[in-house]
Order: sequence, then structure tokens, then C-alpha cells
Amino acid sequence: MPECSLGHVVIIGVGLIGGSLARALRQHDAVSRVTGVARSHETLDLALQMGIIDQAEMDPVLAMKDADLVVLATPVSSIGPILESIADHIPAHCVVTDAGSVKGSVANAARQALGARIDCFVPGHPIAGTENAGVSASFAELFIDHRVILTPLIENSETDIQLVQTMWEVCGATVVRMSVEDHDAMLAATSHLPHLLAFSLVDFLSQQERHDDIFCNTAGGFRDFTRIAASSPVMWRDICMANRDELIPLLDSMEKQLASYRTMLQQSNGDQLEQAFQRAKSARDSLPEIAKSGTEKK
Amino acid sequence: MPECSLGHVVIIGVGLIGGSLARALRQHDAVSRVTGVARSHETLDLALQMGIIDQAEMDPVLAMKDADLVVLATPVSSIGPILESIADHIPAHCVVTDAGSVKGSVANAARQALGARIDCFVPGHPIAGTENAGVSASFAELFIDHRVILTPLIENSETDIQLVQTMWEVCGATVVRMSVEDHDAMLAATSHLPHLLAFSLVDFLSQQERHDDIFCNTAGGFRDFTRIAASSPVMWRDICMANRDELIPLLDSMEKQLASYRTMLQQSNGDQLEQAFQRAKSARDSLPEIAKSGTEKK
Repeated sequence: MPECSLGHVVIIGVGLIGGSLARALRQHDAVSRVTGVARSHETLDLALQMGIIDQAEMDPVLAMKDADLVVLATPVSSIGPILESIADHIPAHCVVTDAGSVKGSVANAARQALGARIDCFVPGHPIAGTENAGVSASFAELFIDHRVILTPLIENSETDIQLVQTMWEVCGATVVRMSVEDHDAMLAATSHLPHLLAFSLVDFLSQQERHDDIFCNTAGGFRDFTRIAASSPVMWRDICMANRDELIPLLDSMEKQLASYRTMLQQSNGDQLEQAFQRAKSARDSLPEIAKSGTEKK
Repeated sequence: MPECSLGHVVIIGVGLIGGSLARALRQHDAVSRVTGVARSHETLDLALQMGIIDQAEMDPVLAMKDADLVVLATPVSSIGPILESIADHIPAHCVVTDAGSVKGSVANAARQALGARIDCFVPGHPIAGTENAGVSASFAELFIDHRVILTPLIENSETDIQLVQTMWEVCGATVVRMSVEDHDAMLAATSHLPHLLAFSLVDFLSQQERHDDIFCNTAGGFRDFTRIAASSPVMWRDICMANRDELIPLLDSMEKQLASYRTMLQQSNGDQLEQAFQRAKSARDSLPEIAKSGTEKK
């Protein structure tokens, strides 16, 4: 066993994120065992066949009997119910974390579910993903050079936080810490709002009379802009709902911004429009060079 | 000379589009000569050094003395003035076309500039490009498997339209024809509106207090979504202004669409939001497989 062995890791939700995490941990020989938990036999059979997990289990309670680290990689809305079901069965010294895209709702649900055991739950979010879902889309390199944000709770011990940090660092990620509130405000801006805009544009165009013609006359720019609109509708419904308190004011601001562009167009104010575009171009040109591949779908 | 020799082709504006066109035509041995016209010595020197053009000229009138085909690949707003300057110097049998992203304003400007010679002007638009500008970003393969839309005028002869069509087909493009009005309505939806949304989002985020933090915590999805916001502000100011009659009603519709999403969030109407996302995903998943690389920047 390598020095950093994380012991028996239980991954609940063996999809793109959970599957990629299992692959990366095993590839780096960082675990003694990975147990995958999923609701469907097909997923578990596939994960076993692909050699992604050592052991498959449908019941999370059974899976975590001797778990050292539990990762919830399921849609945001199911994290609370799963925590409730396992609350009384978390082994002493076992650390629990998650990979949900919203942290406020998850932290609240965790508090309610875990009560006095809340100290063992370290909320986390890998800023990585693709528009493809499911274990068959997983790959060990997904987290390399990507950020993982941990939003530790006041009850967490530094040792537990460090364990979760080590897990992600083993996968090649850079781990940063911030408050739950900062995370949700930031991700609303960089991920949830863009997804909402992309879904909205494609939804809007698909309802146009000549949508077949419209979609035929698109090129790479449109494809890139709308790639995230191919993401899972259920997962993104959950995320948007869970973070709506941050998302709604942002939508209002974007609406104001678009209205100001509209006024510039209406008033033939080319100078102002060019300045606005120039601000955007400068900001986009100076994006840091990290995380060039994959997406922050999750 | 190959059968399809287009003769002496003059390309006014040797940037991404003009440069790529020159490269492709020469690579396919489809021209006897390419003269590049630009306002800057640097561009022309570079284009000559790179072997993209046979001959360089700063004065469009001098360049077109014995031209068989003239292509205007300049920003939309300069097409009118250039046509005015060359109007009295277009050789008989010479065909003129353009590569502008808006066709209504270009067709109007052409009518005004060319008067009775309007028959020689066949408006066109290659749905290809990247977010990078300039002759150094040009490449011969830019148009392969991309669409080129021609919006012929009632005065054009079929022979002249066919000549322009052949030019683009030599470059590997698929040529379709439609009315000026249909073109502008379609491109407003598939290109101009997405650019406005991308510019708007990045502009908005760049004005946030913690924009450095925000941009650090982005991944591939944000990068792809905002790639077109790195496009030329001047070029896109021109395009948006030239097509604002189509763009403004679309902006209004998008605003309504976003407002309806906002209501779903506010009212916790997850089912409706999921349905909307599902419509978008279905449309995005069934995008035709053409034009997977490059963008419709121009």
C-alpha cells in the first residue's frame, strides 16, 4: 500500500464523476479497495466489467460497513436522502464528502441528516466534467489540472479536510478552500448561469418554425457555445433549483446587461457596444491557462 | 491551368477569411493569380512572405485592372465604401462578391454604390471562422465541410452566381442559396445572438468585484461557452449594428424566455424547467454532424 492509501473508499453514484474518481484512485494505487454503489444493476455490472470498482453494492448501508472514506457523487437532490439513510451507519473515523455542484443546499441537508455527526462531512465540488453522463463516459484523467473546491464546515477537523484534499490531489486536481456562500455565488456566475443561457438559447431556437434550417446553418462557434446545453436536464434542474437564491439575482443582472446592449443597438451607439465587447474580449483573452479540457458540468 | 480556373482573383482584406480563401484557391490550383489588397504594409508583406498571395496592392482600383473575380473580405461596414471606390473600375465580365456576415446592409450598400452595375455583385457569406483574426491565423482548410450561403440578387446572372459558387466549392465548402432576408434572420439567431450573449456574460462577470477569483474557478464548459467572446470587438460591433433589425426582436424573445425560466425557479417548478432543458438537449443532440471545427465568427 502506498503511503497515501485512503483505505476502503465507497463511491455512491458511479457516473461520470464517481467513475472517473474510482479510475483515478485505482490508477494511482491510492486505495485498498473501491466499492461502487448505484441503483441500477446495469451500471454496477458495467463498472465491474470495466474494472473501475472492486466491489458493487446496491445498498449504501451495507457498502459502508468498513468504509474509510465515502464519496457521494449523485445528483444534488439525492445527497440529503442518502445521508439520512446512512447517518446511523457511518463507522467511527470514516470521512464523508460529496461532489455536488451546489454547496449551500447540500450543507443544510447534511446538517439535518447527520445531526451530531456533521463533523465527518466535508463538502466538496470538483470543477470538472463533460456534457456526457454515465460510467461509460468516465476517465481517470478527468480531474488533472482541474480545481476542486472544498467548503469545510466549522465542525470539520483539519485531519478530515486534509484526507479529502489528498484524495483529489492524488487525482491530479488543485484543491482550494472557500466558504459555502462564496462557492455558490461563484459557481452561479461561472457555471449555472452559462448553462441556463445555453439551455435557453437552444430551447428558444428549437421552438422556431424553421428550426431544422436554423440548426443546419450553424458552425463551430454555435456548437461550442451550446455544448453545455447537451448536459443532463435532471442534473441541471436540480442544480438550478438548489442554487436559485444565487441564480435569480444573477439572471436579473444579465437581463439588465442585455437590455443595455439592446439600447445601444437601438440608439446606434456603436462606440459603447464596441467598448462592451472589448471589455469582454480582454477578460476572455486573459483567462488563466488552467483547465483547458473538460467542462464544469458538475 | 485546371478546368475550373477562376483567373485573376483579387481579395480585398487579407485577414482570416481572405487569407484562408487565397490559400485554399492556390492550393487547389484554381486561379491564375491572387492579388491581395490591404490597408497595411505589414499585412501585405506578411501575406507575400507566407506565399499566400502572388501580388500585393494597397489601392483596390489598381488591383482590379484585369480582375476576373473580386472578393471583399473586410468588415461589413467597409464593404459599401470600397464598392463605391471601385464602382467605375470594375472590368466588364468581372464578378464581385463578399464574405460579410450580414447581407441586407451589404446588398443595400452595393445597390447604392454600383448603380446599374449591381448585376455583377453576388453577395455571399462563408459560415466559417475562428475567434482569431488576421492573416497569420488563416489556413487553407478553413472552409472544408462548412456552408457558404449565397444570397443572389434579382439582377445576377446564373453564370455569375455559378462562378462564385465554384470558387467556394473549390475550397471544400457546401454552397446553399437563400434570400437576403432569410439569411439575416437565420444568422441573427445562430450567430449574432450567441455572440451578443457570450460578450454580455463575460462583460458582466468582468465587472464583478471578485472577477479574478471568478475567472480562476472556471473550466472547459465556461471556456467553450465564452470562446466567441474573444472575437474582434470592431467586427462584431459592425455585424450587430448592421443586423440590428433582426437582432433586437430576437433579444426581446430571449429576454422573455429567460424571464419564464426565472419564474420556474421562483415558483420551484422543477418539472417545467426539466422539460425546457430536455427540449434544449434533444435539439442540441440532434445537431447535424457538419462543420464540427472552426466557428462562424464571420
